[in-house]
Amino acid sequence: MKRFLIISSLWLVAVTTTLAQDLQSPDGNLEMNFSLQEDGTPVYSLNYKGQEVIKTSKLGLELKNDEHSLLAGFSIEDTATSHFDGTWEPVWGEEKEIRNHYNELEVKLKQAETNREMVLRFRLFDTGLGFRYEFPQQNELGHFVIKEERTQFAMAGDHTAFWIPGDYDTQEYDYIESKLSEIRGQMEKAITGNLSQTSFSNTGVQTSLMMKSDNGIYINLHEAALIDYAAMHLNLDDEKMIFESWLTPDVNGDKGYLVSPTQSPWRTVMVSDDAKDILRSRITYNLNEPLAIEDPSWIKPMKYIGVWWEMITGKSSWNYTDEFTAVKLGETDFDAAEPNGRHGANNENVKMHIDFAAEHGFDGVLVEGWNIGWEDWFGHSKDYVFDFVTPYPDFDVEEIRDYAKSKGVEMIMHHETSSSVRNYERHLDTAYAFMNKHGYNAVKSGYVGDILPRGENHYSQWLVNHYQYALEKAADYKIMINAHEAVRPTGIARTYPNLIANESARGTEYQAFGGSKPNHVTVLPFTRLIGGPMDYTPGIFEMDISKLNPDNDSHVNSTIANQLALYVTMYSPLQMAADLPEHYEQFPDAFQFIKDVALDWDESIYLEAEPGYYLTIARKEKGENNWFVGNVNGNEERISNISFDFLDKDKDYIATIYSDGKDAHYKDHPQSYEIREVRVNHRSKLSQVSVPGGGYAISIMEVDKDKAKQVKKL
Amino acid sequence: MKRFLIISSLWLVAVTTTLAQDLQSPDGNLEMNFSLQEDGTPVYSLNYKGQEVIKTSKLGLELKNDEHSLLAGFSIEDTATSHFDGTWEPVWGEEKEIRNHYNELEVKLKQAETNREMVLRFRLFDTGLGFRYEFPQQNELGHFVIKEERTQFAMAGDHTAFWIPGDYDTQEYDYIESKLSEIRGQMEKAITGNLSQTSFSNTGVQTSLMMKSDNGIYINLHEAALIDYAAMHLNLDDEKMIFESWLTPDVNGDKGYLVSPTQSPWRTVMVSDDAKDILRSRITYNLNEPLAIEDPSWIKPMKYIGVWWEMITGKSSWNYTDEFTAVKLGETDFDAAEPNGRHGANNENVKMHIDFAAEHGFDGVLVEGWNIGWEDWFGHSKDYVFDFVTPYPDFDVEEIRDYAKSKGVEMIMHHETSSSVRNYERHLDTAYAFMNKHGYNAVKSGYVGDILPRGENHYSQWLVNHYQYALEKAADYKIMINAHEAVRPTGIARTYPNLIANESARGTEYQAFGGSKPNHVTVLPFTRLIGGPMDYTPGIFEMDISKLNPDNDSHVNSTIANQLALYVTMYSPLQMAADLPEHYEQFPDAFQFIKDVALDWDESIYLEAEPGYYLTIARKEKGENNWFVGNVNGNEERISNISFDFLDKDKDYIATIYSDGKDAHYKDHPQSYEIREVRVNHRSKLSQVSVPGGGYAISIMEVDKDKAKQVKKL
Repeated sequence: MKRFLIISSLWLVAVTTTLAQDLQSPDGNLEMNFSLQEDGTPVYSLNYKGQEVIKTSKLGLELKNDEHSLLAGFSIEDTATSHFDGTWEPVWGEEKEIRNHYNELEVKLKQAETNREMVLRFRLFDTGLGFRYEFPQQNELGHFVIKEERTQFAMAGDHTAFWIPGDYDTQEYDYIESKLSEIRGQMEKAITGNLSQTSFSNTGVQTSLMMKSDNGIYINLHEAALIDYAAMHLNLDDEKMIFESWLTPDVNGDKGYLVSPTQSPWRTVMVSDDAKDILRSRITYNLNEPLAIEDPSWIKPMKYIGVWWEMITGKSSWNYTDEFTAVKLGETDFDAAEPNGRHGANNENVKMHIDFAAEHGFDGVLVEGWNIGWEDWFGHSKDYVFDFVTPYPDFDVEEIRDYAKSKGVEMIMHHETSSSVRNYERHLDTAYAFMNKHGYNAVKSGYVGDILPRGENHYSQWLVNHYQYALEKAADYKIMINAHEAVRPTGIARTYPNLIANESARGTEYQAFGGSKPNHVTVLPFTRLIGGPMDYTPGIFEMDISKLNPDNDSHVNSTIANQLALYVTMYSPLQMAADLPEHYEQFPDAFQFIKDVALDWDESIYLEAEPGYYLTIARKEKGENNWFVGNVNGNEERISNISFDFLDKDKDYIATIYSDGKDAHYKDHPQSYEIREVRVNHRSKLSQVSVPGGGYAISIMEVDKDKAKQVKKL
Repeated sequence: MKRFLIISSLWLVAVTTTLAQDLQSPDGNLEMNFSLQEDGTPVYSLNYKGQEVIKTSKLGLELKNDEHSLLAGFSIEDTATSHFDGTWEPVWGEEKEIRNHYNELEVKLKQAETNREMVLRFRLFDTGLGFRYEFPQQNELGHFVIKEERTQFAMAGDHTAFWIPGDYDTQEYDYIESKLSEIRGQMEKAITGNLSQTSFSNTGVQTSLMMKSDNGIYINLHEAALIDYAAMHLNLDDEKMIFESWLTPDVNGDKGYLVSPTQSPWRTVMVSDDAKDILRSRITYNLNEPLAIEDPSWIKPMKYIGVWWEMITGKSSWNYTDEFTAVKLGETDFDAAEPNGRHGANNENVKMHIDFAAEHGFDGVLVEGWNIGWEDWFGHSKDYVFDFVTPYPDFDVEEIRDYAKSKGVEMIMHHETSSSVRNYERHLDTAYAFMNKHGYNAVKSGYVGDILPRGENHYSQWLVNHYQYALEKAADYKIMINAHEAVRPTGIARTYPNLIANESARGTEYQAFGGSKPNHVTVLPFTRLIGGPMDYTPGIFEMDISKLNPDNDSHVNSTIANQLALYVTMYSPLQMAADLPEHYEQFPDAFQFIKDVALDWDESIYLEAEPGYYLTIARKEKGENNWFVGNVNGNEERISNISFDFLDKDKDYIATIYSDGKDAHYKDHPQSYEIREVRVNHRSKLSQVSVPGGGYAISIMEVDKDKAKQVKKL
């Protein structure tokens, strides 16, 4: 009886609705329209300053074993608009306060034939649109299986895109810059090898997808708040230039099992005629739920080094012995095994790293390969592959713990799951409790290789659900997570800021696997970083990998100055200095920037930006009056012109500029750099050459007038 | 270097081996032969008293993506024979001491082309053969994937078999009695409906498989110690009468992922010319590992009633409300929902059951449907289906706990997983801790419906591994498990006796789902019970189910006397009196047997046995001088003739005989029974009629001579 009354009241409201609805962004630049087509198909469009950005695009979901689906036959039952303007303080971030400002349109739809209700909720910000599907609790739509989400993004032209191949298992690709119409032709060569990958279409690409129209409008497509739902790819109809959502399937090819009340993630469209606005936009975070952790005081940014690059380059090994082709945890006797003499995670080496971290002010030391199981960890679809608590004979957990503590350094845990996810979930409590016991506050988790349960994909609903499970459980244990090979982030760190970083893109490790494109880091902030910070592991000073391992002829396509700039341009509360201590000791003056640079910020100023070409950002250290500037440059030499007008008017500063040397080039002279100390104030301007794959970094410290005067003016 | 020396020494031993090996059982009745065929294929055969039981049969495994597999090309590297004779005391069981007595043959094989080693280990007992494959740790065979195990059991004739269809997900079938050659023709009608089933072959059957040859030899095929391996079915080549192993596949059709050192479960062949020996044999337990629980004192047999039969018959419901077609745990508001008025697990009804249990001396009360989620628990492939800790509004966990405690009754927990196995594993610690907190020492777990991870099967390696995980974790929490719909047991309760029962066959519930064959219970002890006890839930007194639920016209194909006998013939340390208290109150004299019958035994005497036809067993109560006898009868009336010579010679006893009434019949007069009290001693003999679907039960209590004399002699 109660239910009947509610339905009746909704029908009464429905009388007041119309068939089309417009919505404007607070600044009026963006305008969207929602309507129903004649057959009751919901559609939307989006304009920016009067120009079409999204042409009329369909919305809906195709359901499995359901003749009606949620595609058409809808009528508008009710609409409501509202306005929101508020601010919130992130636990860490690019600024101390984030404004959440949007106009909202809520459209309640009813499918007459099925009596089902579906709500479409649109939020229009100054920098873009977010919308999602909501499925209220209802007996007519209790459980349903998504065959495919049919959300369209109809482009208004053959834009230039920075894209990576659609893939159910990896995002570790170099970006391709091409016209949308050229995607199909370039797909084959874009799909480079990976340890686990599943492509699906010649025109399928991943989000966040960065585009630029011929008339200079920047458009970014992504999603926010991906919770218990499959990650979205975009499949392009390259005749009509319409992208359509393509969810990651499960083992049976199904795209999602939902139970009402529930909702899809937000689909986001960022738009501006200024690329800097894409970086400035916070709609991805704003579309996520507020902080879910009552007391987040244990979450803190970290700068760290690690026993890692030596394994990545092949100089040392994760595994302790070469004696076994197969390991049976609990049975294989490592104490009796012959060490291979190349094991990186040994007490001596780890202590050296702790010493180095302590000497240079790093917060933490990551050690990979400390726990038994690395002899056969990959490629065998092995269920019980790691136990996450048993060290190799040459790694003494207690000794290392005590030593690190005595030096004031935190150890960072490493949990490679080898994608054996059931095994990881079974050990999660024990592993986290082990971390608590031994003083590890952060864990780098890894999901290399094909997923177990076999047949599942890294980005399917099953796995998305897993990453979230591990994250929320970690919060219970006050543990910060840096998840590698997991699904790319979608702003969930607003809610769970213990997700301090992800990999989920082609990281620095590929510089030791054959190299990445020199302009790679000018793209990432417009794509991968839209959803959250990346553990990019910058700071490589030795670009010739054969010097570490004669069998590895890879080259790091970056200058030292570019490497330094990454600490500013690639925002993350977790920053690694990834190279070997001995390489830092070779270049102590350049290393100084890595030591100085802050991790958390009161303010970020986007000075120059063009995806794929260049990027210059200035950031103000949290709680301090120091600024750090980073410029990364693309494939061609360029002069960066910036003003220091962001500095306080009445203050004096000394700037240390770490720039490319005159003969620098990512390929030939990557280690050529110059450092100069100059006096700057808010009137200063800089014109600085950055070479191909180069850039510059600046630290700007407030000083008193007298000290400033000892230094030459810029 | 060390490894090389070991291999060398094995080669030295190999010189002493021969190409064929014979082995005899301790009593000499069984003789097996092992040899290699010309192409290096291992084969074995088995004779009983000079007659062929297993004709020359191949052994080996086909591996995935491996041109050599483990099928042929072997040479014998070493053989060893040994003798074992020992006894062990089960925590509970059909007798207080079990003899483990066998001759063993170990054959070390080497595959020249691959340098791989495989060990075949045969143990020949007086009642049968057990053998398994062992894969020692070796670099040549580290990880491997089983495409199919190719173990043959070549029958010597077209035997009569009691079989159920091979199925990856259920054993809940009525048994078919047919010639092996008739299996194919009868398969289609043998496959009756079930909530989750996957058949695979027209000649595929399940183990344990009971057979009888034309010349009266009983043969039983099963497996022991099924750990981290797929459950074995048998597929019949019905031209050659060769059974071959057919493992349960995973989602990709693969049969198992193994890592050396490891081994297969034991494959068992029980043989005798006396069917009673099949019941007497303990080879399944003996082939399992010894007790793994240090102090098993918390494991104890239980007799229980439950809020269960009323739901099974449809008289009441598991779910609390009919308002929701979908439930979202944590969001759906049950307090505000309208109760359906049929919810069985309500405080009042549960307390009534506790009162009844206390009054009649039952140890425990099971309550199903106490926890939220039953509204949409089945058929939706729902991941987060139960949380195992949140009660419905009308079930007060604390109140029930305290009430039960005050009455000296234990509550039995119920965990229906709906086969959402990841969800169950995630909640396992919390659920078990909840049980500890609220005084539940035993749990009935259920795996109804299709498995999540989707595509997996109830009996694949993934799930076998899960059941074991839940069992071992339960031991950590001192919790006893009664797992329903899980894989059929294989004697693992020797190692983990907290596995006090399984369902894993067609239980009494099917008497409310259309009925089972009257002779079903004369087959189960020869098939399902070979691997361990069954929670068969006997004790139904009201055979007309329409009296409980007018919409259910099912009939229980059994007499009351037959129901009583089941407490003796269907050995289990967990015994339910499944009917409603009100039905027991209608027949208090018959109910007395259920109250009296013991749960644990010092000795068991198999008096009469013919699978599918009849079964009479006498058991001596543990620590007491009381005996209980049970006879169950098949489809035809029969006179059972037994002697009481198992009684102590110098003692007097009063026997209470619960037999079928003169007009009794499972169909027409199932409630017709007679009870008579007679004096018996070791010279007494009984000639007792059992009607179709009938039987008798006897309790025999030692009394002093004077008291005995007051009672009429048998």
